[in-house]
Amino acid sequence: MGRWEPDARGRLAKAALELYGERGYEQTTVAEIAKRAGLTERTFFRHYADKREVLFAGSGELEDLFVRAVTGAPESAPPLDALSLGLYAAAELFTDRRDFARARHAVITANAELQERELIKLASLTSSLAATLRRRGAPETTASLAAEAGVAVFKVAFERWIAPGEERLMAELTRESLDELKAVASGGQAVPVEPAD
Amino acid sequence: MGRWEPDARGRLAKAALELYGERGYEQTTVAEIAKRAGLTERTFFRHYADKREVLFAGSGELEDLFVRAVTGAPESAPPLDALSLGLYAAAELFTDRRDFARARHAVITANAELQERELIKLASLTSSLAATLRRRGAPETTASLAAEAGVAVFKVAFERWIAPGEERLMAELTRESLDELKAVASGGQAVPVEPAD
Repeated sequence: MGRWEPDARGRLAKAALELYGERGYEQTTVAEIAKRAGLTERTFFRHYADKREVLFAGSGELEDLFVRAVTGAPESAPPLDALSLGLYAAAELFTDRRDFARARHAVITANAELQERELIKLASLTSSLAATLRRRGAPETTASLAAEAGVAVFKVAFERWIAPGEERLMAELTRESLDELKAVASGGQAVPVEPAD
Repeated sequence: MGRWEPDARGRLAKAALELYGERGYEQTTVAEIAKRAGLTERTFFRHYADKREVLFAGSGELEDLFVRAVTGAPESAPPLDALSLGLYAAAELFTDRRDFARARHAVITANAELQERELIKLASLTSSLAATLRRRGAPETTASLAAEAGVAVFKVAFERWIAPGEERLMAELTRESLDELKAVASGGQAVPVEPAD
């Protein structure tokens, strides 16, 4: 098996995803991941705290990028416009690695504990965004609703991005999801969208 | 300690909430709950599978009521209008027992495992509502976004309903949250709302 990327971190992540897919997440050990990557367990633990972190290592970066863009939005921008800037900033994280994201999603869907972790990650993102909007002066409930809506747009766009056969960019799918949210909330039926495959 | 309600189920729930508040959820046993309620452990297990279920016993009813109302909405109703009917149907569950809901919320907030369970409950509600909207003919992503938005409205209204000093009805807070969602999604800053206390 050739090297996927020259970096140890990327090789470990690729090896982990392969093994989780082949044997199941529960059945895979750190020793096996390190071996598959041609590295030592010691190297694994320099990069990841445990085998679960391989799947969630990017969530801090996602939240930082998202929150930073909302914080930096023009003061006059209403909540959903500020969130849109965050959504487009976050979309830049989803450029390559679509196959990795698909494999990761399949592993998470198959494991209740990992699904919970994913829900917690999104709840944390929602709380951070709501706090950011409140700091920008949005009333309490407006901030909460806008943050929930923004994360919903992210979730739906991401689910479409990893759908089988989907090739459009995350930014484009984000824009479509935002438009659909607006259509839904304005009381209309959103225009049906072409299926992804 | 007098009886709160004549029914065993209600007495067990009240005793459990008292003990979770006094000693912490982790430290409370089923035996202690039964004793506080003046009942046997056997009676406890006729009503609840375990001590966690005391806190989540109502979630099936909430989901059923919500989904049934959305299913029964007029065929021509756009997704958010159908969801609104579900929200108002669900609001009828939150008439009395506001103090119970406040005590329950405090227990859940103090315990990571219970918070996860609450997130899973809401994710399950969101999935059911999205499936219901799809059955009504909504496109896949419209259904997902509308369901996420509807559950966000529910969460925000519920958080306001249990806020200290809040006395308004869940239906009224639901209506306000729906209006705020529409204002947020239409790109405007929602009109600031009076604080709850």
